Order: sequence, then structure tokens, then C-alpha cells
Amino acid sequence: MLNKDYVAMTAGESVIRKMYMYGLGRAAQIGAENVFDYSLGNPSVAPPAEYTDALVDLVRNENPLLVHGYSPNVGMMAARQAIVDDLNKRFGTDYTVKNIFMSVSAAGAIAHALRAVVTPELKQNVITFAPFFPEYRPYVGGAGAELRVISADTNAFQINFEELERTIDEKTAAILVNSPNNPSGVVYSTATIDRLAQILTAKSKEFGHVIYLISDEPYREIVFEGVDAPFIAKHYKDTIVCYSYSKSMSIPGARTGYCLINTEAEGYDDFVNVCVQISRGIGHNCPPTLMQLAVAKAPGALSDLKVYEENCNILYGELSAMGFEIVKPGGTFYMFPKAPSGDATAFCEKAKEFDLILVPSDSFGVPGYFRIAYCVPTEKVKRSLEAFRKLAALYF
Amino acid sequence: MLNKDYVAMTAGESVIRKMYMYGLGRAAQIGAENVFDYSLGNPSVAPPAEYTDALVDLVRNENPLLVHGYSPNVGMMAARQAIVDDLNKRFGTDYTVKNIFMSVSAAGAIAHALRAVVTPELKQNVITFAPFFPEYRPYVGGAGAELRVISADTNAFQINFEELERTIDEKTAAILVNSPNNPSGVVYSTATIDRLAQILTAKSKEFGHVIYLISDEPYREIVFEGVDAPFIAKHYKDTIVCYSYSKSMSIPGARTGYCLINTEAEGYDDFVNVCVQISRGIGHNCPPTLMQLAVAKAPGALSDLKVYEENCNILYGELSAMGFEIVKPGGTFYMFPKAPSGDATAFCEKAKEFDLILVPSDSFGVPGYFRIAYCVPTEKVKRSLEAFRKLAALYF
Repeated sequence: MLNKDYVAMTAGESVIRKMYMYGLGRAAQIGAENVFDYSLGNPSVAPPAEYTDALVDLVRNENPLLVHGYSPNVGMMAARQAIVDDLNKRFGTDYTVKNIFMSVSAAGAIAHALRAVVTPELKQNVITFAPFFPEYRPYVGGAGAELRVISADTNAFQINFEELERTIDEKTAAILVNSPNNPSGVVYSTATIDRLAQILTAKSKEFGHVIYLISDEPYREIVFEGVDAPFIAKHYKDTIVCYSYSKSMSIPGARTGYCLINTEAEGYDDFVNVCVQISRGIGHNCPPTLMQLAVAKAPGALSDLKVYEENCNILYGELSAMGFEIVKPGGTFYMFPKAPSGDATAFCEKAKEFDLILVPSDSFGVPGYFRIAYCVPTEKVKRSLEAFRKLAALYF
Repeated sequence: MLNKDYVAMTAGESVIRKMYMYGLGRAAQIGAENVFDYSLGNPSVAPPAEYTDALVDLVRNENPLLVHGYSPNVGMMAARQAIVDDLNKRFGTDYTVKNIFMSVSAAGAIAHALRAVVTPELKQNVITFAPFFPEYRPYVGGAGAELRVISADTNAFQINFEELERTIDEKTAAILVNSPNNPSGVVYSTATIDRLAQILTAKSKEFGHVIYLISDEPYREIVFEGVDAPFIAKHYKDTIVCYSYSKSMSIPGARTGYCLINTEAEGYDDFVNVCVQISRGIGHNCPPTLMQLAVAKAPGALSDLKVYEENCNILYGELSAMGFEIVKPGGTFYMFPKAPSGDATAFCEKAKEFDLILVPSDSFGVPGYFRIAYCVPTEKVKRSLEAFRKLAALYF
């Protein structure tokens, strides 16, 4: 028979997906242009031409046995070299190809990083901070650890350090952070990261083993003007970066990203080869060769990301003026306002009456908020303001 | 610290890879044209133009937000529909999109299929037949089951049914088969598959639960003239097919394949959604969108595969004449002759003296044989015969 645990999981329904499906149904009724679908975190701008031109050039002009052939399990050397060169130039680091393992996007990177640092027999835990991406639950559970969630700092969506210090214990294998954050849009400040690093250094010493910092950074390149956005790996030696090109290059379908470990991190010598071993058991060894080679030709290329900041400014300004309480995002394409009724689900149901598709916050580990994924055309953001005004009028 | 089990695994070395690396080193010394590298199962012919043209057309002419965007977790509808239409036309089946889950090549397909049918708490086993692909060990172990290996039928590389009947028990969740087979090149006959189906039907009844047949078929399209090659899923209802385009289209770097379950199989209603749940824990949700869409445009396209049969005929005829004992392959690009000394490792070491790079059979679960991966240009096969002759002269 089929594994009953997985069968039971199929009954669960993602609230994000439920809202998205509702929006699709409504679009079929009244036209997609009349539905203000803020449910999904799908990039709304095209990939950079450097990337798409590279794809075509590779297919048309390079050796097909290379371009379509197997990648080494650690990833294509050309991609690994180009990526660390780009990081070193931007962040003043000195990574080499030995620091990097090419992964199937951020999901694959996190799957590898967690398995690398967790020993299931030890009944360890991994700590994250609300609000958090709901898939962290299956990621951490799949690696054989318990996910512990620190409740949100709702003043600023930075980190609730008091609760962290109470929660971290000798069974803590890693801390999993996501900055810029989905769903809050907030970026952890240098002060936040430095305090986190201090605590982890002290606790690692206290417990006699390293506590890793796994930094999930798919939104690293989407930071708004003037925002303090530290490169986290420079602030704590035992950091593993999990990256994806899904958002920065608008290529989530390319399933391409990486794990990067600091040279000073414990386990550095083994990490990349450990990732290779992990792949063998979970069935995905590396991203597609063609995408790796295309990224290698343009490792720093970016989509035209400024639309997200423009959308953010419009929504933040207008919704704040309507009465919504919002911590101003520093990046991403998300915003996480307080649900005025306190009941996020009821609020998002009410929003449907105005064809606003919003996601209630509960699955992100914080009750009483809602997520706006404003990766939509700016003209649509502007047209949606009238619907937000009608909705706000019911509460304020 | 890092997980010690994975660190320990890094010390292990694949004998295939070791031979390949030796060949690379030798090529640097004497020129690649003088090294007869039969170590790796990498396709040696280009992908079909239908596929590469589709890639370029999609990148140049289709909506970039679709082509580079997220795939649904089950796979792109266009790909699923095109693939089942192609299968139905070729095999007289009546699959629909509900039968198929798009996977990250055959490795991803097997990772999903095994997790779907194994319940780790039940301490189940999965049975396979020697000779077998060495990665079946981490695949089965990673899914939480014990791999049991039935020793080889060295007369014909069909199935040792007596040992199967003794080995199968109430804890057997699935049988994992690979036909056409890596490394023997042999195709299971209709008689073999029908007898296997009879045994599984009887044992499923005896034990009161279904025993699945997981059919790993990346070489399905590489079958030589006149060979009886049944479509296995038509012979046993509880079959899950694991497929990859890596060999048929020469695109192993595209990481694209699928899991397909029979409509009559137990668990059919849940299977595809169970695969979606499994993906959440292991971090790979589907193959790249672009590759799925390219396959959708040409689901039945094939590389020019006849070179493999030509190489097989040359090597089989010549090596047999030299005195090697070989079960004639029915497909793939592998051949599995008996090592004349009985010691496969010593034989393959000796072969190096003639710059023949061969792989000893031990890691495939059978001592005393060697694998020839003849996915190389035919002119090179011809030039290698002199080296084989010199080698054979030492033994016969």
C-alpha cells in the first residue's frame, strides 16, 4: 500500500494555493484584469536578456554533449567559478569553488544544508523565526529534526532575542533565517545579525558544538533604496548560504541555486562532498546543466527589479493612509499588514468581495496579519487601490 | 557538526568514477583519441533537433513568465498530456494526466516511487536483481527500506526466480527492476515479466498486501532489432514506471523524467498527490519548466540511437570470436562479458595496460564480470579491437 503519512498529507491544503485557485476561478468569471491577485510569490518581470541569450547561444553554438550532458554532482565548474567570482567582487569575500555546491534552487539547497548539519538519531532541533515560509516545516521534518518557531517581533519583524535565548538548547543543530523575509518583506539589520551571531557564538561555546546559521536568501538581490542589508555569511563564521536565481533572475522554473559554506565554518573541508552524498539518497544531484552554464555566463545578471519597490511604495503609502498598520518592507515583493479585525482569515474572506486575493498569516506562524505579494504590474496595483479603500472603509 | 554518516560516505569511491578519472589522466598523457574509455554511461549522440529547436523556440517566442516560471508541483499539464498521449499511441494504453507525475529524471522518479510505497516504521524491504545499478543502494536506503539483492542468472541475465520466491516475504514493499538493464544490456522477455507478475500476484495475495513493481526504464527506447521488449506496466497492474529522457533524447543534463502509475494499481487515486507531498520533504518538486515544455512539443523524439546497436554488434561479434563469454545485449549501450581470469578487478587493471578503460562488475552485485559502456563513436570501437585482441591473447 502507499505510505499512509503521505496520503494523510494530501488532505491538507495550502491556504496560499486555495486563495490562488479561488482567484483563478474568479478570473474565469469576471476576467483576469478585474481580479487583484496578490496570492502568489511569482516574479512578474522577465528574466534578464543576458540569461535568455546565453540559453539560446549554448543550445545553438556549443557542444551538445556538454550542454545537455551530465553535470558533475557538485555542479558545473564554470558555474561554481563564475558565482564565487561574482560574490567575491560584490562582498569582498574570498570564496573558491570548494565553498559551493550547485543545488536544485533554494528548496534543494535547504534540503542539503539541513541534512548536512542534522543527525536524526540525536533528536535535534532547528530554530526559525516567525513569520516564516510554511515549507520550512516539511524541509526540517524531512531532515529528521524538530522545527522550533520563535514568535514574531511584531514591532519591526526583526528577531525576538529573549525567546531565542530561552529556546536554544544543546540539541539545537541550526538556526534557519530568511532575510529579506517572506512574508514580512523586512530585512534583518546589521545590528540584528550581529546580535544573532553573538548569541550563536556564545551558545556554541556553552554547548560544546557549533550551531550553524542556515541563511535562506532567494530575495537577497531585491533590497530597496537605502536599506541596510548585510551579507549574512560575513557576520557569522558557521554560516551556510542557500541561494536561488528564482527571484533575482525571474527563473523559478530553472530550478537553479546553490549552497555556499564559509571557509572558516566547521566542516568546510567535507561540506561539498557531504552534499554529494546527500543527493544520492534524495534523488536530485544538481540543477540542469544548461541553466548552470547560462548562469555561468551572467552570474550577476538581474531582472528589472525596480517595479517591486515602486509597487511597495504605492501600497505602503496608500494602505497606511487608509489606516492599515504595516512594518515597511526593506525588500522582496511582500508586505505583511495587520488584519484590522484581528481575524486574518475573516478579513481575507471579506477582501474577496472586492476581488482582492490576499493570504491570511496563520500558516506563516503569526495570527492576525495578511500577506500581499505585490509581484504584479504596477498599473494593476494602482487599480486595486479602490478595492482596498472599499475594504478599509468597513474597518476604519 | 556535520552528519557523521554522510562524512563517512565521502570516503567511499565509485569504481566507475575511479576508472573514468584514470582514463582522463591517461588522455592527458597520450591524447584522448588513444584512450578507449568504456567507463561511463554518457550518451554519445546529440539530442534530436525537435528538442533543441523547441528549447530555442520557447525561449525566443513564448511568454517568458510561463517558460521560466514555476511548474505546478505535479508537472506542466502540457508535458503530462503529451507524454501520456504518446504512450497510449505506442503501447495501446489509456493513461491520462492523472497517471503521471513529472520528476527530476529517473533518480527523482525512483526517489518518489520508493517513498510512496515504503513505510519506514514497518521495516520493509525492496528486492532487486543482480546485476543492478549501484545507486539503488542509497535510493532504497534513503527511502527507509532494506535492499535485498537476488543473485544473477548468469546464463541469460533474466531472473533467478527460485531465489526470488525464497527471498520475498511479508515485509516486501516492492520489486525494483531495470530492463533494458544497466549493466548487462539484457532485456527481460515477455516470459520473464509474465512469470514475475504471476509470482507477485500470488505473493500479494498470500501476504494480504500489494507488492509494487517499480520499473526503472531509462533505456526503454534503446532496444535492438528483433528483441522482445514488453512494456512492463501492461503485464502487472501494480506497476510504477520510472522514466528519464536522459538516454532516449541524450539529455541527462536536463534532469527530466516522470513517474507513471497504472490506473488499476492500488493507490492510483492518491499516487500523484503523494508524490507532491514527498517532494516537499526532499526539496525537488519537478523538472525545469523549459525542459518539460520542450519535451511536450516532441514527446516521442529520439536521438539517432542506431550507433549503439552498431557498436554492440561489432563488439559482441569480435569479442566472442576472441574467446570472451558474453550474454548478447538486447538494448542499452552496455555489455557485460565474463572476466576470463575470474577476477574482474585484476582483469580491468590489466586492460589499462592497453588503454582500455573497463569497469569491474563487483559494485553491480556480481563478481567476475566487467562492463563495457559502448556509447562512444563507432570508429573508436573499431580502433579498440586491436587492444582487446592483445588483452585477450593474455588469457585465451
